[in-house]
Amino acid sequence: MSSLLETINSPADLKKLSMSELETLAEEIRQFMLRSISQTGGHLASNLGAVEMTLALHYVFDFKQDKLLWDVGHQCYTHKIITGRKAGFERLRQVGGISGFPNPAESEYDQFTVGHAGTSVTTAVGMALGEQLKAKAAAPKIVAFVGDASIVNGTSFEGLNNLGLVKRQLLVVLNDNSMAIDVTVGAVAKYFSRFRLSHTYEDLRRTTRNILEHVPGIGRGVEEAVEKIKKSIRMVLPPSQLFESLNVPYFGPVDGHDIESLVQLFEALKEVNHPVLLHVYSKKGKGFNPADEGPTRFHSTGPFKINGNCVEAAPESEQKSFTEAFGESLTELAERDHRIVAITSAMCDGTGLVAFRAKHPERFYDVGIAESAAVDIAAGIAKAGLRPVVCIYSTFLQRGFDHIFQEVALQNLPVVFCVDRAGLVGSDGPTHHGLMDIGYMRMMPNMVLVAPADAVEMKRALEFALSQSQPVVIRYPKDAVPADDSVCAASDAPFELGRSVVVRHARKAVLTIASYGTLLSEALQAAELLDDDGIAVDVVNARFAAPVDAAILTALSGRKGLITVEDHHAACGFGSAVLERAAEMGLDAARIRVLAAPRRFIGHDSRRAQLMQVGVTADDIVNAAKEMLNDRGGKRKEK
Amino acid sequence: MSSLLETINSPADLKKLSMSELETLAEEIRQFMLRSISQTGGHLASNLGAVEMTLALHYVFDFKQDKLLWDVGHQCYTHKIITGRKAGFERLRQVGGISGFPNPAESEYDQFTVGHAGTSVTTAVGMALGEQLKAKAAAPKIVAFVGDASIVNGTSFEGLNNLGLVKRQLLVVLNDNSMAIDVTVGAVAKYFSRFRLSHTYEDLRRTTRNILEHVPGIGRGVEEAVEKIKKSIRMVLPPSQLFESLNVPYFGPVDGHDIESLVQLFEALKEVNHPVLLHVYSKKGKGFNPADEGPTRFHSTGPFKINGNCVEAAPESEQKSFTEAFGESLTELAERDHRIVAITSAMCDGTGLVAFRAKHPERFYDVGIAESAAVDIAAGIAKAGLRPVVCIYSTFLQRGFDHIFQEVALQNLPVVFCVDRAGLVGSDGPTHHGLMDIGYMRMMPNMVLVAPADAVEMKRALEFALSQSQPVVIRYPKDAVPADDSVCAASDAPFELGRSVVVRHARKAVLTIASYGTLLSEALQAAELLDDDGIAVDVVNARFAAPVDAAILTALSGRKGLITVEDHHAACGFGSAVLERAAEMGLDAARIRVLAAPRRFIGHDSRRAQLMQVGVTADDIVNAAKEMLNDRGGKRKEK
Repeated sequence: MSSLLETINSPADLKKLSMSELETLAEEIRQFMLRSISQTGGHLASNLGAVEMTLALHYVFDFKQDKLLWDVGHQCYTHKIITGRKAGFERLRQVGGISGFPNPAESEYDQFTVGHAGTSVTTAVGMALGEQLKAKAAAPKIVAFVGDASIVNGTSFEGLNNLGLVKRQLLVVLNDNSMAIDVTVGAVAKYFSRFRLSHTYEDLRRTTRNILEHVPGIGRGVEEAVEKIKKSIRMVLPPSQLFESLNVPYFGPVDGHDIESLVQLFEALKEVNHPVLLHVYSKKGKGFNPADEGPTRFHSTGPFKINGNCVEAAPESEQKSFTEAFGESLTELAERDHRIVAITSAMCDGTGLVAFRAKHPERFYDVGIAESAAVDIAAGIAKAGLRPVVCIYSTFLQRGFDHIFQEVALQNLPVVFCVDRAGLVGSDGPTHHGLMDIGYMRMMPNMVLVAPADAVEMKRALEFALSQSQPVVIRYPKDAVPADDSVCAASDAPFELGRSVVVRHARKAVLTIASYGTLLSEALQAAELLDDDGIAVDVVNARFAAPVDAAILTALSGRKGLITVEDHHAACGFGSAVLERAAEMGLDAARIRVLAAPRRFIGHDSRRAQLMQVGVTADDIVNAAKEMLNDRGGKRKEK
Repeated sequence: MSSLLETINSPADLKKLSMSELETLAEEIRQFMLRSISQTGGHLASNLGAVEMTLALHYVFDFKQDKLLWDVGHQCYTHKIITGRKAGFERLRQVGGISGFPNPAESEYDQFTVGHAGTSVTTAVGMALGEQLKAKAAAPKIVAFVGDASIVNGTSFEGLNNLGLVKRQLLVVLNDNSMAIDVTVGAVAKYFSRFRLSHTYEDLRRTTRNILEHVPGIGRGVEEAVEKIKKSIRMVLPPSQLFESLNVPYFGPVDGHDIESLVQLFEALKEVNHPVLLHVYSKKGKGFNPADEGPTRFHSTGPFKINGNCVEAAPESEQKSFTEAFGESLTELAERDHRIVAITSAMCDGTGLVAFRAKHPERFYDVGIAESAAVDIAAGIAKAGLRPVVCIYSTFLQRGFDHIFQEVALQNLPVVFCVDRAGLVGSDGPTHHGLMDIGYMRMMPNMVLVAPADAVEMKRALEFALSQSQPVVIRYPKDAVPADDSVCAASDAPFELGRSVVVRHARKAVLTIASYGTLLSEALQAAELLDDDGIAVDVVNARFAAPVDAAILTALSGRKGLITVEDHHAACGFGSAVLERAAEMGLDAARIRVLAAPRRFIGHDSRRAQLMQVGVTADDIVNAAKEMLNDRGGKRKEK
């Protein structure tokens, strides 16, 4: 570890440094992050871009008392490093190490556990209103740090539109690197980048000087200051226009890597008794050539090796992921089916659509971090007679819940939702798990819920979904498909609406295991293990969570019990749907055991460890089966 | 009925009229709406403001082929009147009559059943993209009609930000009457109204002429046209600025009641091969003095009588509503508890907060139609140590689902959600029912779900919620509270976390009825009826849907069965939670019968008729009880 960084154990240590030492520290932090992330993987490019801004903020504010609110949190590593969490980077995003996102449980310097976009401005407005009402003398300063990809999210816009409620200090730092995870899309992004390109480094210096000369304060109101700055700056000014329309006092653009200027600007703006927005240009991946040139590749990366300027990725798993299986199938199906249109929300790469985009660019839409718009645009496309396929992670699709209800389910439009990252997601932790989609989708009339168990079923599920005249949801996890593409011979059978498939039939079976989706391989493994112990069980691949196949239940009559397995909360999940169906049919649900995640938040860890933690692996199924057989009729202990 | 309107049975009839006849027709339609809504109740003020715009649109476009997309749909009455649905107004929003919102099941002229704000631009973008891909010669023209209150919704913003994806005709008509349901709030609204006030009628005429002279077309692109118009218009121009930043070609503002100009403008803009936005000023409640002066009062009204310029409301129900009971309790509690802050989303009146706002203006925030911001701002306020109470209808709170998950549940912040219009809502129909909140809330860890059965319990539930350190959801319906404020003596007992209350204990009871929330009175009535038939039952007021009281289940051991009753979808509801708990406890769920709404959409009707339709009234409970006792152990038929 380098010498300056070694001395920084809290922001207080930072404040002792000179400007040139801060610059050295910034460089050391970059090296630390590179070394660290090359070992563990993590969000690299966005963090490299935010080093100077973060140092300057901590230099000026006292975030033990003041409040710093991150948006999404992809840029909080520097913040974590200087707030006493350097050591935690050794096991970044692993159990025992620190989380990749802000987390109040880790540090008093973190306010909200975040991971979804567009919430920093709104929560900052709320905190500012709270402080305003409490009206204490030494009220904390509040800073929201938001990227250009998040500022276009509907929630950010609603927050900016309500910024006027705040009658006290509130600083919004807009970190504009013209990159979301991929290139930022949409009109606002184009608008920003137009002016970005026309600004020279000298322009930014001049703007900084002008802000400092005219900063609002005693005797000069915010409006007057903004007017003065506008008049004295000769360069192109329009980045302010959008924010002026929203009545947000706008300052900038300024250089996000000029630490001395940033310190001066924050010192000045900190004292403004009114919300202000500072627009800062930065470079995603700054200081690391490969990330600089390919920030998408290094947005979120696995471990890698650096050889001078060359980067070698650590060998990735050779197993195909569900995401890849989906991308391949959709791209192939779209060759024949010209109605297929793919829509994503800033996640072309993450949802496996890179090949689709290359092959069918005219049928690919990325709407930016705007899940609600993605759902509605899909509804419109379906209304026009085409077949939109909406590809969004389970947790982010929660943003479109109401739109799925009104614009899709209520109209009964044939939109296909491909819900990636359904279930436990491993290292990203609780903001990213997709543990509610079965529940929020299956309440809606008209909605059909499907889950494939392997790559072959993925294709069959897609074919089925595209053949339907109502909306269909296909869910699949952040995980590898079974090595040979199918867990059993039955995988290749076409999907039929509401029909489950018996994939393992035992003579004299005493129990049935019904699995929904990817855990079928665990169920089959459990069946083998039980077989070794002389316990014969059937295994059913449910395929559908809505409607639930009655055949799963009627099997109960010849068996001693039924175990359901899924990668979702027990509340409102597949097992819950089976229980509802059993109650409707008047069956004895005392003989049904639901294996699913309990109602609590699951921290970052490997996906495998998380599956074990919630109790849905083959071993858990075996234990549940034995318990049921020993304990039939009796009452189980409460969890 | 007046003479011109009698001749209009479809938009084709409209096209035969002269401009002055159109003006006469507009007047006749206003009179028709007044007469009709004074009989049935309905959305008056917004519809009076949109008459000329709607006539001009239908005069110019052919919406048999072209597509007209309404936002929220509070302004679609003129559209319904001239598309063959005049007669349906006799039973507006009643069974057999027409719905108050657009509805494709009613007419080929309607595209989407809407009721939630901010979806017209996004769905219009989708339909335009669909047509763009199909690339047919005679593709339909697409028009989105959106009000100034909806345009500030996050979804609208995301739609405008993605308007650039569309490379063909798409007209957005922005109907700006400076009124949401109440006065529109937020920066954009202020911004609009500033320029609105500075415009004279002559300015609007001049703008119209300028648009018509410079309209884009062959040989003149949109950008050039916009530039020309800007140069030739001398008056204050800034309303364009917001939209220019979003790269939306902006035309206006123009007069929304000058039908001839509107026809000319639509004729011209219809041919533009590019998305454009026309900003139209109108007057909510136009032509009816009382609505003109008090549009909030006449946003949605019950029946009333007109005596010249005086209006007498038909006597409203004298029974207190749950909404009123809530408003009274919160206002009173806020006197003592200075931490309480109320937040609503353009629904101060609808959620019963008028008295609270008057009494505690500094602790009241209306954020406009921006539910996601409302939730996040509440999270921030809670983080600052105060007690935010978020008051939003169940169906609209769906927009905040993800924010409730991440910013509230995951942080375990003590935000209180007061979920009004939970359950069936009567005349507003399927877009407005709150049939999913138990499900979407109870999946979230940390979340406590409560439902009061009467006015006394409402206060107790609020006291309980405000005493907790985790988030609490209180749901209640659009209905009257029991006449004497409490259904039974037990109502006054304080709420204890997860504890149900036995409100009727029968000697030798054979069944238990467990009710969640308002249907407790039905359950008690059913118990009386069963008693008359010699069947003794206990009645439990569940009070909590999360956590579910195990005592509700243990009662099963001494009884022949348990019936659960609720005003929610059966999927994921209270009964479903009881089944999950029973399965956890290893109890026989064959003896549990869930009475709740089936998984289908319920049309507009009286709330009472809807409760009967889904089968959750006292009679339904009686029938279910008898069926269970006759049919114990056997299998019930599938629904």
